[in-house]
Amino acid sequence: MLDLTADVVDLTAALVDIESVSRNEQRIVDDIEVALTGLDHLHLTRIGNTLVARTELGRPERVVIAGHVDTVPLNDNLPSRNDGTLLHGLGSCDMKGGVAVALKLAAGVVDPNRDLTYLFYDGEEIASEFNGLRLVAEQRPELLEADFAILMEPSDAGVEAGCQGTIRVEVTTRGERAHSARSWRGVNAIHAAGEVLDRLNDYIARTPVIDGLEYHEGLNAVLINGGVATNVIPDACVVTVNYRFAPDRSEAEALTFLEHFFAGFDLVVTDSAPGALPGLDRPAAKAFVEAVGGEAKPKFGWTDVARFTVLGVPAVNYGPGDPVLAHKQEEHVPLDQLRRCEQTLRTWLGA
Amino acid sequence: MLDLTADVVDLTAALVDIESVSRNEQRIVDDIEVALTGLDHLHLTRIGNTLVARTELGRPERVVIAGHVDTVPLNDNLPSRNDGTLLHGLGSCDMKGGVAVALKLAAGVVDPNRDLTYLFYDGEEIASEFNGLRLVAEQRPELLEADFAILMEPSDAGVEAGCQGTIRVEVTTRGERAHSARSWRGVNAIHAAGEVLDRLNDYIARTPVIDGLEYHEGLNAVLINGGVATNVIPDACVVTVNYRFAPDRSEAEALTFLEHFFAGFDLVVTDSAPGALPGLDRPAAKAFVEAVGGEAKPKFGWTDVARFTVLGVPAVNYGPGDPVLAHKQEEHVPLDQLRRCEQTLRTWLGA
Repeated sequence: MLDLTADVVDLTAALVDIESVSRNEQRIVDDIEVALTGLDHLHLTRIGNTLVARTELGRPERVVIAGHVDTVPLNDNLPSRNDGTLLHGLGSCDMKGGVAVALKLAAGVVDPNRDLTYLFYDGEEIASEFNGLRLVAEQRPELLEADFAILMEPSDAGVEAGCQGTIRVEVTTRGERAHSARSWRGVNAIHAAGEVLDRLNDYIARTPVIDGLEYHEGLNAVLINGGVATNVIPDACVVTVNYRFAPDRSEAEALTFLEHFFAGFDLVVTDSAPGALPGLDRPAAKAFVEAVGGEAKPKFGWTDVARFTVLGVPAVNYGPGDPVLAHKQEEHVPLDQLRRCEQTLRTWLGA
Repeated sequence: MLDLTADVVDLTAALVDIESVSRNEQRIVDDIEVALTGLDHLHLTRIGNTLVARTELGRPERVVIAGHVDTVPLNDNLPSRNDGTLLHGLGSCDMKGGVAVALKLAAGVVDPNRDLTYLFYDGEEIASEFNGLRLVAEQRPELLEADFAILMEPSDAGVEAGCQGTIRVEVTTRGERAHSARSWRGVNAIHAAGEVLDRLNDYIARTPVIDGLEYHEGLNAVLINGGVATNVIPDACVVTVNYRFAPDRSEAEALTFLEHFFAGFDLVVTDSAPGALPGLDRPAAKAFVEAVGGEAKPKFGWTDVARFTVLGVPAVNYGPGDPVLAHKQEEHVPLDQLRRCEQTLRTWLGA
C-alpha cells in the first residue's frame, strides 16, 4: 500500500522497490490506482496499465504532468538504498523520482490554480507500440487536451527542452552455411558483420545547434545475434542499430542517413519516433522556464515531449535526477532534487 | 519399424525421416534397438542413447564399425527426397547413409570373417561432453577393444585418414552500459567486437602437409551474442570461435595460437578435442586401404577417429556422401555410393 502522505523520498523508495521492468507494470499501476482512489478532487481513468487522474475545477488553463512507471531490465540494482544524500536503485532516476513528485502533487494539491491531468503510464522503455501515452493519445485523445505538458523525466531538476528522435533498424548480413571443418566452402555472415561494426566505429556524431541549444547525436549497435550451431558456418547475422538524431532531422531524413551509412546491407526499420524541436518560443514553455528559474538545456534522450508536440501541446522535461545516470546500473537520485522539484511545482500550482 | 531387409537406399530414407537433431536421438535409437533385437549373432548393450551390437564368434581380429545418429539443426530439409540418383535431406550425407550401411551389415552379415562391434551413438554434432562414443569409452572401455575401427563418416566412399582437431573459445568484449540517447557516456561492447571480427577477416589458413596429405585449417566465428535492450549501450558481447587445426598441432598448441591471435581479449575454452595423425603406416589401416582400393585423402572434419587414436585403436573414415555437403541445407548422398560402400564392406567381411 503506497502512502502518499509520506515524504517524497520515502515514496520514491517505495516505488523503486516495486519492480516494474517494461511489460511487468501491472502491480505498480494497481498500487497507484488504489492510492489515488477515493480522493474527491481526482477523476480516474484506467486504460491497460496506464492511469489518468484529472481535476475538473473549471480553471482557464490545464497542464499535464506525466511520468512512465516502467524501467529498463534489472541489473543487480534492487532493492533501493538511501545513503542520506542519494537514493540508489533501478528506476530511482529514470523515473520513479519524478513519478513520486507527481503522486505527492496529485494527492496533496487539492485546489491548484490550474486544472491538472496526471498520467502514469507503461511501456516507455521499449518499442513505441507498447507506449501507454501513445495508446491514450490514439484511443482517448480528449484526455490529453491541455495548454502545456510537463514530463517528469530526469533533467537535474531543471528544464530540458525538445528531444532527439530515435530510430532502430536491423542490419542483416547473409552468408552460406557449411560445416565449420570446411569453412572455406561456406560464407560466414558473422564475419561479414565486421564491416557493419567498422562503420559504426568510424562514425562521428553530428552536434547541431538549434534555438541556441547544442544537441548530440548517437549511432550504436544495441543488439547483435548470429549463428546456427557451434560447428556450422553461420548464414545470417543481425545487428540492431539505434540512431538518436537531433530534432532538425525528420524520421524520413534519419532513415535516409542510415540507408546511406549502411549502403550495401539489408535494413529493416523496427521502431521510429520523431524528435521535438525545443519550442522555447512558445509562450507556455517560456513562462514555465521563467517560473522555475534557471536556463533551459537540450534534451538528448527521446521523450514523450515528441508525442505532445504532435498533439499540439507545448511540453518540456522537468524532473529530479541526472539524465546521464538513466539506464546505468548505479542510477540514483539526489534527495534534495526530489524535494526541490516537489516544492517548485507546489509553488507554481499555487499550493 | 525399420526394415533391415530393405534396400540400403530405402533404409537411409527411413532413417533420414526420423528427425534426430542432437539431444533428440531417443526415438531413432529406440527404433534401431528394436530392429536389431532378436538377431542371434548380435549381443546388444544400450548406454543412454548409444547402442553397441557385438558378434562373439571368436575370430582372431575384431573391427569396430561406428556411426553417429544425430544431425545438425533442421534447415527446411526434411522429409527425404529420392530423385533416382541422389537421396536428399537432413542427415542423408552426415551420416545416416553410413548408419544405413552399418545396419545392413549388422543384420545381414551373420558369419563375418572378423568379429564386429557396431556402434550407433548420439551427441556427435554438439559439444564433446554429449558424445556417446566418449561416454562408452569412459564407462565401458572394454566394449570398444578392437584391432581396427571404421567410422562411417562421409568420405565419398573412399578412405579419409586422420582428422583435424577442434577447439572452441568464447571471446568476450566488455563495455559500460548507458542510455543509448547519451551513448558517449557508455562504452559499446558490440562495437569493441569489431576488432575481433576484423582479425578473423584477416586470418590466413595454414595448410600443412602430413604423411603426404595436405590439411586445411579454419578459424571462424560460429555464434555472436550481445546486447541488453534496444535503448541501452551494451556492456558485453560474446563471440564463439571455432578453430579447426591440423593434426600436427596439439590441443595445447591450438590454444596458444588462439591466445596470441586474440591477444587483449578474454578467452574461455568451451570445447576441445584433439586431431588424429593420418597413421597410414599402421598395418591394419594400410591393409584396409588396399582392400577397398583407391587412395587415402586427408580428413578435414573432426571425427571420432581421434577418440580411437587415444584408445590405441587404428581408425579411418570410410562412408558414403561428399563431406563438403555435411551441414549444408542441400546435403544429399549418391545412391550408387550407398550401394558401393555396402558391397565393398560385405566383400571385405567375407560375405
